[in-house]
Amino acid sequence: MQIIGFIGLGLMGKPMAENLLRATFSLVVHNRSRAAVDELVTQGARAANSPREIGEQCAVIFTMLPNPETVATVVGEILEFARADTIVVDCSTSHPRLARELAERGAQRGIFVLDAPVSGGQVGAEQATLSMMVGGDENAFARVLPVLQHLGKNIVRVGEAGAGQIVKAANQIIVALTIEAVAEALNFVEKSGVDPVKAHKVMLGGFATSRILELHGQRMIARNFVPGGRAETHLKDLNIALDVAQTNGARLPGTQRVAEMFEELIARGFGDEDHAALWRIVANEFDN
Amino acid sequence: MQIIGFIGLGLMGKPMAENLLRATFSLVVHNRSRAAVDELVTQGARAANSPREIGEQCAVIFTMLPNPETVATVVGEILEFARADTIVVDCSTSHPRLARELAERGAQRGIFVLDAPVSGGQVGAEQATLSMMVGGDENAFARVLPVLQHLGKNIVRVGEAGAGQIVKAANQIIVALTIEAVAEALNFVEKSGVDPVKAHKVMLGGFATSRILELHGQRMIARNFVPGGRAETHLKDLNIALDVAQTNGARLPGTQRVAEMFEELIARGFGDEDHAALWRIVANEFDN
Repeated sequence: MQIIGFIGLGLMGKPMAENLLRATFSLVVHNRSRAAVDELVTQGARAANSPREIGEQCAVIFTMLPNPETVATVVGEILEFARADTIVVDCSTSHPRLARELAERGAQRGIFVLDAPVSGGQVGAEQATLSMMVGGDENAFARVLPVLQHLGKNIVRVGEAGAGQIVKAANQIIVALTIEAVAEALNFVEKSGVDPVKAHKVMLGGFATSRILELHGQRMIARNFVPGGRAETHLKDLNIALDVAQTNGARLPGTQRVAEMFEELIARGFGDEDHAALWRIVANEFDN
Repeated sequence: MQIIGFIGLGLMGKPMAENLLRATFSLVVHNRSRAAVDELVTQGARAANSPREIGEQCAVIFTMLPNPETVATVVGEILEFARADTIVVDCSTSHPRLARELAERGAQRGIFVLDAPVSGGQVGAEQATLSMMVGGDENAFARVLPVLQHLGKNIVRVGEAGAGQIVKAANQIIVALTIEAVAEALNFVEKSGVDPVKAHKVMLGGFATSRILELHGQRMIARNFVPGGRAETHLKDLNIALDVAQTNGARLPGTQRVAEMFEELIARGFGDEDHAALWRIVANEFDN
């Protein structure tokens, strides 16, 4: 059986790696901090000390990393040491331009780099119900699809290298702007003296319904901003979209405005809270 | 059996009235233009020539009217001529202040006026799956609930008179801002050269999913802006929210901005198109 590598055992990466172990794949894992590695080892994984070690022995390598800079370093090291025909599946949310560059560098050595960012959060990672938006070589995608199916449910190859990151950026635009919309609406209801729990319940039955209204609306009503998805991470995603828009000419007026609201939230010290904490800015919490 | 009245047989009102006929209620209908009345009569309804005639003979009276001005006129006439203990259920999207005024005027004559705006569109009206957000007297609501259950599925009394309209305004805020979000995201995807159909499909499986992404996203990709819900109507709804926000102190920065985009769309002659036509403004269609 082919050996699978997994690098980046954070909130998302760890449950994804655990799903691969449960599917009885032979798994080698690496992570910056050792605790998560040890935990996976008790579940049957082997530990590796570097991306190089993973690169040298694995046929399929997953990466789930916090930002494009780390993706560039880690995937860069893999590309130096991996064998030809290795498939690298980068599940990080990263920059489409970097995804294209890495795919091109890989292609020069016969290595396939797919960008495969996900949506669905920690719950989706745990339950293997993630959406995966994949960009890159069509044959490599077909070969790795049976493995991906242990991680997610709605897996679509959306185009060539970088296309997965483009769609993930679009996804994060919708999520951010919907969070802002739900915050405006629920604050409007509360400021009018109407019970937001009842309003939330009835709106979930009509055209306003969404995963964000359901989940993040609930968090806003409860003022429970334990992450989920961190505000700072979401701003990073929006900045990728805004950067891409400078070259593709798409107008993103709402994204621009909501990114500024996230900047204010983070400047006030709430970057580690859930992105639903955008409610604090919309509700003008700091002027009261 | 008590006689039920229905005034306003438009895109929403007609299928709602038909559902009441199907439930074998004894129905009297009135409409500004006669064609819809005649159609209902062939299905077993009786015709009335004025809100007064409806008011004089009905125990429960539904109104589904295009704007607050018409609501004030029609419900005003009903309140003059209806018997004590009549229940008026105004399903129009109207102003919360008017809803409170009409409820108070009704109360002086022993008539109950409930505000009961709906969400779910023409399809929801036809399939009797509307969400109904109801404000007003609790006993009157309990008495009329068995009738409402032939019109919708998710029926919640959200508070006193006017509360239904507050929640409807909040609902319309979310719908408008989500439409704008979906337009930015899909235009971003297209401008990046990625297939919007594939992007749409995969985003529907993750956190970005919503009724609006599903339905209005589809319309944007197909450039099919046959209404559904008209852009001009939606701007009217947003202006109610913005007006309320002037007195309750809620901040609505996104709503303000999207209302301006709808204004531009309408000024360019697209007010009769579906609200998903907001895509035209986001995609900067007019500068190309």
